[in-house]
Amino acid sequence: MDHVTDSNLTDLALQRWATAHSPRLAELMTALVRHVHAFAREVELTEQEWATAMEWLAATGRASDDKRQEFILASDVIGLSTLVVQLNNRFSAQATPATVLGPFHIEGSPPAESGTDMSQGLPGMPLFLTGTVTDTSGAPVPRAVLDVWQADAEGYYEAQLDEVDEARLRARYRTRSDGTYCVRTIAPLGYSIPMDGPVGTLVANTEISPYRPAHIHVLIDEPGYARLVTHLFQAGSQYLDTDVVFGTRSELVVDFTEHPAGPTPDGGHLDRPYLHASYDFVLDPEH
Amino acid sequence: MDHVTDSNLTDLALQRWATAHSPRLAELMTALVRHVHAFAREVELTEQEWATAMEWLAATGRASDDKRQEFILASDVIGLSTLVVQLNNRFSAQATPATVLGPFHIEGSPPAESGTDMSQGLPGMPLFLTGTVTDTSGAPVPRAVLDVWQADAEGYYEAQLDEVDEARLRARYRTRSDGTYCVRTIAPLGYSIPMDGPVGTLVANTEISPYRPAHIHVLIDEPGYARLVTHLFQAGSQYLDTDVVFGTRSELVVDFTEHPAGPTPDGGHLDRPYLHASYDFVLDPEH
Repeated sequence: MDHVTDSNLTDLALQRWATAHSPRLAELMTALVRHVHAFAREVELTEQEWATAMEWLAATGRASDDKRQEFILASDVIGLSTLVVQLNNRFSAQATPATVLGPFHIEGSPPAESGTDMSQGLPGMPLFLTGTVTDTSGAPVPRAVLDVWQADAEGYYEAQLDEVDEARLRARYRTRSDGTYCVRTIAPLGYSIPMDGPVGTLVANTEISPYRPAHIHVLIDEPGYARLVTHLFQAGSQYLDTDVVFGTRSELVVDFTEHPAGPTPDGGHLDRPYLHASYDFVLDPEH
Repeated sequence: MDHVTDSNLTDLALQRWATAHSPRLAELMTALVRHVHAFAREVELTEQEWATAMEWLAATGRASDDKRQEFILASDVIGLSTLVVQLNNRFSAQATPATVLGPFHIEGSPPAESGTDMSQGLPGMPLFLTGTVTDTSGAPVPRAVLDVWQADAEGYYEAQLDEVDEARLRARYRTRSDGTYCVRTIAPLGYSIPMDGPVGTLVANTEISPYRPAHIHVLIDEPGYARLVTHLFQAGSQYLDTDVVFGTRSELVVDFTEHPAGPTPDGGHLDRPYLHASYDFVLDPEH
């Protein structure tokens, strides 16, 4: 191999990383080297900026642990997480689109019958979410599992709360034989991403809003269909147009209609006002 | 701002990061977003690969501390560190070229008279390094400080050794009034980058040699001249053609000539064989 000169450096780096034992790793690393070098050349990266970047990267790694994934947050705020979702979930136009999983999903949420209140008395406006799960031809998907989770009225997920030792604002609902479902919970609220780490410091140096709009996460993973990881967003909620993680898609924005005290969509009755949202999930056949 | 679609995501991310308060941060972040998105699209990054990358980044940050800078190592092995050096040290063709500083430089090394042995009895073959420091017109630079440091016979720098509490294999020599200098030390040896961290794991999945060839670091920072951070490499030494951090430049490869016991270049006498290398440093006027 030649010694390094001002003109052969990138080629030498590409030759080396092309020796990765796995062809896919070679493909990934050579593309990475090409883009990193092109970036540095384009911006004429200074030595001080490079040193600042190295320290930022190390601090971002140190800020990451079981509860907090600061690099995923970094990926979120530059749109990379959403881009990876889009690249890997190219569904038919009729199917419900995917959005980011987020770092707060917990496996194995408790099974819940239609209408079960997954908020279990936590403070918040009651919310009923009803609709169907069908395939792209409109045929119902019976006994489909809707894995549902959301943040509490203070914007925290169970995964962020050390003291919680039972399922909190998460449950696995099943559709009935006709493909219909009914989730009962509380209205979600928008919340800020954590601003006390290296990603927050970077965002604070811009006009970027650090908030996510109010949303509920839904994951449907049925045999024969492409796995759907998505959110439902409340129409008209704050931050809908500036979702810091680029998760908001128009197809996923739903009216949360306010109803007075009285009969509820689960066939029951409430003595205070509640919200009702209706959404029909459409699953893409597995390719 | 619009909701996200499959076609507007990158543009939205660019619009947002263009709001950085500092024009330079806006320039850096928008270029970064463009290249990161282009990389992900080009390789069709999978969700599993993205997750693996996020975990690798977090682990690389956690492996970094005061003694070990795993992200700098990552930058080194993809050629980014050397590229940044090249972009920021475009000297005249006659001047000594720069190479990477590396993570092991310690400020404030002890001053040493010409000929002082900075190895202070550590095991190794004696090495004399002599020559001049001049400007690009050939005029000597008197009283110029050569800040010199190197690894020991086991490949460790002082900065890596917790137990050392005095300067070890590092000193600041001055040129004489005629621009000449004389460093006495021991022959450096090649060494491997640390292979027990996330960068090592990645390198181990390729045919890339993890070694650096034998070298001595020199830093000369004189008023009126561009700061020179460079190495001298031993001609013929192992790994010279495969330096894992892309530091080897032909202009910096020097013969280390073996001499029998007898008179030495510092005007003294040794009763065992020694090495002698001669190198003339040429400083570029400050731009």
